[in-house]
Amino acid sequence: KAQLADYTPVRGCMVIRPYGYAMWEHMQRLLDARIKATGHQNAYFPLLIPESLLQLEADHVEGFAPQVAWVTHGGDEKLEERYCIRPTSEAIIGHMYSKWIESYRDLPILINQWANVMRWEKVTRLFLRTTEFLWQEGHTAHADEAEAMEEVLRMLEVYRDFVETELAMPVWAGQKSDAEKFAGASATYSIEALMRDGKALQAGTSHYLGQHFAKVFDITYQDEQGKRQFVWQTSWGVSTRLIGALVMVHGDDQGLRLPPNVAPVQAVIVPIWRKDEDRAAVRLFVDRVRELLGERVRLHVDDRDQYSPGWKYNEYEMRGVPVRLEIGPKDVANQAVMSVRRDTRAKESIPISALAERLPAMLAEIQASLFQQALEFRSANTVLAASKAEVIAHFAADQRGFVAVPWDGSAAFEAEVKEQTGATLRCMPMDTARFAELERPGHRIALFARSY
Amino acid sequence: KAQLADYTPVRGCMVIRPYGYAMWEHMQRLLDARIKATGHQNAYFPLLIPESLLQLEADHVEGFAPQVAWVTHGGDEKLEERYCIRPTSEAIIGHMYSKWIESYRDLPILINQWANVMRWEKVTRLFLRTTEFLWQEGHTAHADEAEAMEEVLRMLEVYRDFVETELAMPVWAGQKSDAEKFAGASATYSIEALMRDGKALQAGTSHYLGQHFAKVFDITYQDEQGKRQFVWQTSWGVSTRLIGALVMVHGDDQGLRLPPNVAPVQAVIVPIWRKDEDRAAVRLFVDRVRELLGERVRLHVDDRDQYSPGWKYNEYEMRGVPVRLEIGPKDVANQAVMSVRRDTRAKESIPISALAERLPAMLAEIQASLFQQALEFRSANTVLAASKAEVIAHFAADQRGFVAVPWDGSAAFEAEVKEQTGATLRCMPMDTARFAELERPGHRIALFARSY
Repeated sequence: KAQLADYTPVRGCMVIRPYGYAMWEHMQRLLDARIKATGHQNAYFPLLIPESLLQLEADHVEGFAPQVAWVTHGGDEKLEERYCIRPTSEAIIGHMYSKWIESYRDLPILINQWANVMRWEKVTRLFLRTTEFLWQEGHTAHADEAEAMEEVLRMLEVYRDFVETELAMPVWAGQKSDAEKFAGASATYSIEALMRDGKALQAGTSHYLGQHFAKVFDITYQDEQGKRQFVWQTSWGVSTRLIGALVMVHGDDQGLRLPPNVAPVQAVIVPIWRKDEDRAAVRLFVDRVRELLGERVRLHVDDRDQYSPGWKYNEYEMRGVPVRLEIGPKDVANQAVMSVRRDTRAKESIPISALAERLPAMLAEIQASLFQQALEFRSANTVLAASKAEVIAHFAADQRGFVAVPWDGSAAFEAEVKEQTGATLRCMPMDTARFAELERPGHRIALFARSY
Repeated sequence: KAQLADYTPVRGCMVIRPYGYAMWEHMQRLLDARIKATGHQNAYFPLLIPESLLQLEADHVEGFAPQVAWVTHGGDEKLEERYCIRPTSEAIIGHMYSKWIESYRDLPILINQWANVMRWEKVTRLFLRTTEFLWQEGHTAHADEAEAMEEVLRMLEVYRDFVETELAMPVWAGQKSDAEKFAGASATYSIEALMRDGKALQAGTSHYLGQHFAKVFDITYQDEQGKRQFVWQTSWGVSTRLIGALVMVHGDDQGLRLPPNVAPVQAVIVPIWRKDEDRAAVRLFVDRVRELLGERVRLHVDDRDQYSPGWKYNEYEMRGVPVRLEIGPKDVANQAVMSVRRDTRAKESIPISALAERLPAMLAEIQASLFQQALEFRSANTVLAASKAEVIAHFAADQRGFVAVPWDGSAAFEAEVKEQTGATLRCMPMDTARFAELERPGHRIALFARSY
């Protein structure tokens, strides 16, 4: 209804419509700046991966081959070797890195790409799981094991900061269990958000690839002593799934509530006139407001005659625009605009002389308030369990929220919870301050939840 | 050698490496702003197109079916209907527009997408013709025929302005002949640039689609009188081919010469020290220069010890960096930097007090000078012919450059020139001032050239 996306005749694929895509553009801009600030450069690798390359890394092919789309013909010609549409690009990038890297002087390689990828999913859901999606995927190679691990955690922290700051979405950053890690990785880290229906959503991942790909793709460098060494690698990504996360973390029964930092429209002006003689004065005042705000606020003026002000209020509430500015003859007389916040519905008349300062400040308050509300929701929906039995008991009674539990690392524990409740081990959080009372020797804190 | 791109094991596909991709990012930023300023919004449509949709428009399928990649399997499952990887998106977008458009109030629809596309080419060449390439494709629908034609010409002019202003590349904007138009269009317009080897390159196209797609995809709207009408459509695009054009329009025997507006690095600082005691002073001065320039100039400092200053001069000449700044102990003593322009090799010592003004001004001069040089090259390589025989005679003697000729619109004329010389009708320029002496009643000026 908010025209974020639409279904298509292509199985499991969606159109991201302009309003949804504009959110993605803001996310791209804000994340790309962070990716570049940490020393990475963008590049672009081929969409297609030869089957023989995909098959080199055994875990990787086992994880991805069942869910790739295969290109078998070019024009009328049957291909000698099939290509898959990239489900992720470790294989083709690994192949290129083996050509590019010769000496320790070529390292680290810190490359990111913004691209589309495709995974042939059985069950799809707009934004959260689509056959094709857009993402960025970082792929780095390092001379040193410790440096590679630093990179993994640096990007995990970049994601945490980006998602919490710009999307107002609190996340747990932590390590995945072996059962849930990326196909081909030594270790996977993720950020996990809690949707308002109580399910967790993996919102970004950062993988430590060790030397798995280096060994099969022969990615080596000559060290300072002239010895050949395998590189250490990482990869990390977030996707258009984040748009779905935004909807499900912040939305309410009236529709979307968009964090101002990524809202395509931060404030909408609805001009109001009953009588034709008010029209010119309101119009003039609207122009003045627009000029006054300039580039400070992403503004939209909806002066369409065929819709009533009331219809427009509902429309922009549904679309999640953070602030509505009503401007009628009374406001013109008062030299003020009436603002209405989407998050709290609070009304505040702002004198036009204060608007250029007050409106950006209000947007910052809304950004902070959405984060706070989501954090409180998560706190209220996180329980502590002392044992596997308590975890299972929780999900039997209530399928929602995170359950923190001391975990001995056993796969059986994890499998039993999953089998009996459908909840999975989302991550072992880096920050365990909240769970201090659960600390046990030989155990790590694990967060379980049902998920998308 | 400049690490713009590399070959891959995927037939006809390249990697765009960070230095090449950074140029594309600057192009995207500058063109995207123009696309938005003319009222368009970005969106994203699926990569795959069902075979049945591609086949609806007869000319379109005839033009594109022989050169698409076909997806026949998803995981282990053979698909009931094949999908092609989009060679262009008229078909899938037409299908969506038929769902979205109901009333004249929904028009115009002004949508653009940045995406990858794939055409299974027999002969490929880095940047100029690759199986996969990146581009933007605009797709608009209008209630009115005249408005659609205005849009076609507006975007042609946006391309002309973008390419001439930002890429310093003079182009002829004009209409294609029927033989050369887009498969499925009523009319195609293009911008045509001249490479330094004397061949023309189509650098962007804007298509008037009339109602061809509207009729087969059933894209209709209810007009103000309540009558169903078919929409009028346009589409237009430029691609990563422009990176190749940049190389071939401005490059010389020493390598690239990049227009400052899209150069990833606008000025490179090469610090020079022979004795260790100079090092600290030079470093300090470099830092001061860097701070002074701030965000005004995209700066790179190459302080690697393992390469000599001379090696670096060659390296950055080859990579086309517009200005080199040499900073040694003498410059520190003089409180100045020695600048060397890539385009003219002119040296100029700039006092540090003037640098923040002088360097941006110098970059603007280089931008203008590259355009001027390319314009002079094109003028020197454009000849006027009075007849078909003269066109053929020109290309028999010299395969390079544009030949302008009055054309009666006959397909035989065009075919004969092509057959005998390999030159094709590039476009009928909008601006014919230079060719006034060729004007004949019932004729239009046509530009012929050999091309990529």
